[in-house]
Amino acid sequence: MRELAVATHARNELIDITSEVEKAVLDQGVAEGLCHVFVPHTTAGVTINENADPDVSRDVQTTLASLIPHTGDYRHAEGNSDSHVKSSLVNCSAIVPVAGGRLVLGTWQAIYFCEFDGPRRRRCLVTAIGK
Amino acid sequence: MRELAVATHARNELIDITSEVEKAVLDQGVAEGLCHVFVPHTTAGVTINENADPDVSRDVQTTLASLIPHTGDYRHAEGNSDSHVKSSLVNCSAIVPVAGGRLVLGTWQAIYFCEFDGPRRRRCLVTAIGK
Amino acid sequence: MRELAVATHARNELIDITSEVEKAVLDQGVAEGLCHVFVPHTTAGVTINENADPDVSRDVQTTLASLIPHTGDYRHAEGNSDSHVKSSLVNCSAIVPVAGGRLVLGTWQAIYFCEFDGPRRRRCLVTAIGK
Repeated sequence: MRELAVATHARNELIDITSEVEKAVLDQGVAEGLCHVFVPHTTAGVTINENADPDVSRDVQTTLASLIPHTGDYRHAEGNSDSHVKSSLVNCSAIVPVAGGRLVLGTWQAIYFCEFDGPRRRRCLVTAIGK
Repeated sequence: MRELAVATHARNELIDITSEVEKAVLDQGVAEGLCHVFVPHTTAGVTINENADPDVSRDVQTTLASLIPHTGDYRHAEGNSDSHVKSSLVNCSAIVPVAGGRLVLGTWQAIYFCEFDGPRRRRCLVTAIGK
Repeated sequence: MRELAVATHARNELIDITSEVEKAVLDQGVAEGLCHVFVPHTTAGVTINENADPDVSRDVQTTLASLIPHTGDYRHAEGNSDSHVKSSLVNCSAIVPVAGGRLVLGTWQAIYFCEFDGPRRRRCLVTAIGK
C-alpha cells in the first residue's frame, strides 16, 4: 500500500490524482491486476471522469450541489451533512485494472480526488493487487 | 469468503457492520490486501460513512428519501422502485484496504449495511484477497 | 483481463451483460476471488440490479433522468454533461465475488452496462483475480 497526500483549496474541488496513483502502482511492482484507490475520509470521495474539458468537473460539482444543497433539513450539527451525503453517493473507492504495470484507463478517463468539505489536508491509500 | 447475516428493523436503516466485517477478514487469514463487502440484494446496499454522530446516517437517509421518493412515476409493481434506485446509486459493494490483518479505515469511517426495503433478513458476503 | 464489446441502441439504456462477464471469468481460470467489471468510458457506467422485471431498469433510468436532466445549468459544450454526472454517480466499476469459477450473485441480481450517451460501440474490461 502507498499513501498519497492531497492538499485541497476549496470547499468543493475535484483534483486529478491519476499520475500520483500510477506512480504508487509502479512502486508496488504489480504488473497485472487491480489498483484500489481509497479515501479514508467521510466528507470526500474519489471518482473517474473526463479530464479533457475542465467544464466536466465543474458540471459534476454544480449538479451535486443542486441535488444535495449545503443547507437543508439536516440534523448533524457540523454543517457538513451535504459533504457526507456526497461521499456516500460518489463513493470513497475507485478500482482500475492494471496491465503491464500501468493503469488501464479509457482515453478520456482520469482519477479525481473529490473534496466536499475543504480546504483540508487529505490522504489517499493506493493498493495494487495481482502479480 | 464469509457470509454475514444482517437483520433489519425498518424500511430504511443504516446498520454498522464494521466489527463483523473485520472478524470475517481475520477468519480468512489475509494480512495484506483488500476486503470486499458485497450485498447480494437489489433493494439494499453498503456504504462507508461517519459513525461518531448518528445524525449523519439520519441525514444520509432523509436526503436519499427526498431525492428518490417512495412513490412517484414508477412502473415496477412491487412498490419498491425507490429501493432499487437507491441500491444502484449507493452501490452494493464496498472495498477497504487490509493491513496487518485489520481493516484500514479512516478515524471516523464505519461500514454500513443500507436497508432500503426492510425489515428483512439480509446477507452480506465478505471476501478478503491478498496474502 | 478480457474485453467485452457492447453495442448500445439508445441514448440511455441498461444492457444485461451478466452471461458475457461470467464467460470472461471462466476464460481466466479463477476459481475463488473477485471479478472486476470496468467501463473505460466517461459517459457510461455499470450497475447491479434486478433482472426479473424490466420495469426496474426503466424506473432506474427515468429517476436518473429526472434528477439529472439532459439540459440544464451546464457549461460542457458537448451537450452530454448529464451523461458524465450519471457516470460518476452510478460508477464505472462493479465487483462481484467468484466461487467455484462462477459469479456469486443474489437471486435477482444481474450486471448491467449503463449507456448514458448512446447509441455507441462500447467496451468493458473484466478482470478476475484470486486463485
